[in-house]
Amino acid sequence: MKDADLVVLAVPVGAMEAVTREIAPHLAPGATITDVGSVKRDVIAAVAPHLPKGVHFVPGHPLAGTEHSGPRSGFAELFDNRYVLLTPDPGTAPEAVARLRALWEGCGANVEEMDADHHDLVLAVTSHTPHLIAYTMVGVADDLRRVTDSEVIKYSAAGFRDFTRIAASDPTMWRDVFLSNKDATLEILGRFTEELFALQRAIRTGDGDHLFDYFTRTRAIRRGIIEAGQDTDAPDFGRMPAKARADEGAEK
Amino acid sequence: MKDADLVVLAVPVGAMEAVTREIAPHLAPGATITDVGSVKRDVIAAVAPHLPKGVHFVPGHPLAGTEHSGPRSGFAELFDNRYVLLTPDPGTAPEAVARLRALWEGCGANVEEMDADHHDLVLAVTSHTPHLIAYTMVGVADDLRRVTDSEVIKYSAAGFRDFTRIAASDPTMWRDVFLSNKDATLEILGRFTEELFALQRAIRTGDGDHLFDYFTRTRAIRRGIIEAGQDTDAPDFGRMPAKARADEGAEK
Repeated sequence: MKDADLVVLAVPVGAMEAVTREIAPHLAPGATITDVGSVKRDVIAAVAPHLPKGVHFVPGHPLAGTEHSGPRSGFAELFDNRYVLLTPDPGTAPEAVARLRALWEGCGANVEEMDADHHDLVLAVTSHTPHLIAYTMVGVADDLRRVTDSEVIKYSAAGFRDFTRIAASDPTMWRDVFLSNKDATLEILGRFTEELFALQRAIRTGDGDHLFDYFTRTRAIRRGIIEAGQDTDAPDFGRMPAKARADEGAEK
Repeated sequence: MKDADLVVLAVPVGAMEAVTREIAPHLAPGATITDVGSVKRDVIAAVAPHLPKGVHFVPGHPLAGTEHSGPRSGFAELFDNRYVLLTPDPGTAPEAVARLRALWEGCGANVEEMDADHHDLVLAVTSHTPHLIAYTMVGVADDLRRVTDSEVIKYSAAGFRDFTRIAASDPTMWRDVFLSNKDATLEILGRFTEELFALQRAIRTGDGDHLFDYFTRTRAIRRGIIEAGQDTDAPDFGRMPAKARADEGAEK
């Protein structure tokens, strides 16, 4: 630790403070410390106060990974064309940020910087709330007595199968994410519930136009993701023959 | 149509009745008619009353497909190792059911029979409600003014990216699914909301044990799906090297 130029905290968000307290006395002056936590404001609050002077803290979050965790779940291409978000305080030494950026770029990632609070809101929308919802839906299926477990498993169509994959993610990591990104997650959950109730009402009252318009609007976002190249691992790409994949690229 | 031994209704659920009325006078005695609708009780009510005597009706639902629709979205392996659920009335001629079963098995599918109401409940859990939830979440992201569209697209992590794929499905088809499987969908949505509120409360009150226990339970279902071989097209399989895939198979 004493000779380390770079220290990466790769532990659940809830363990960041304890680990930092333990290693802080051993950090060399001029060293850079970063993390890979899914939440940034709480990690900064947990880590920054314990660091000695002269140590550069550059919080980070690589948007990569599968539902598997632990060192054996890594693979060489994991960060290829994925985003890594850095949320350094404006006062951070630019050379420390630049070195960390170079490291991630060397792994094939695209690096961007943003404010920690904004990071937490964006991720509440694109990752944290979707995970909570997937966990919930899988839990509902598991509870339902009139549908057997084996039916849920055998007949899991596209929708549910994707949810179970998301809901297989590490429980410790996700518990900590929700506890430490509480405000943004609760805000997005509130909006989600509002919209869901509106759709539920449309189903109950038979308002087909509302459903059709809503479903038409959500299609556009998907097109954007495909065009942005963030979906090279889409499930259907594995099964579709090359011809169909080429067609999809051409589709308007 | 007059010489057809088999007629397959492959139109949105809401169009089944109109199409059946139009073709019914031209169906040959002894012909078999089936459908591929995602809902079965409503399709039976829409189709059965209009069929002439001597025509065999065997409702069906292949659990296969991607978010793409139309004839150009088909491919040869589409039904390989997928389930096709048939929901014939107990009085249906067994030879008609057997012929249809043979057709689907010839396409590589596993065929099972069940009651139409039970089908609609199982699918409300494994497909219809998950689709509605995914549509909702993508709609929320689209509405959120403090997060830009480009951020939602660029930083869409695993959770949200899967949702957008689900939410890109055909709006007409899905409008009809929700309108015609109203009761089962509303029941499952009610249970979903109950569970979601319990998790939301756990986040608000900081009840980490509740979150951890819930997330641990949902993991088991995923294992079951992998063991049942219904996830050969999992997103991570496209990116994981062969070694990691083999490890996953071995994982307990």
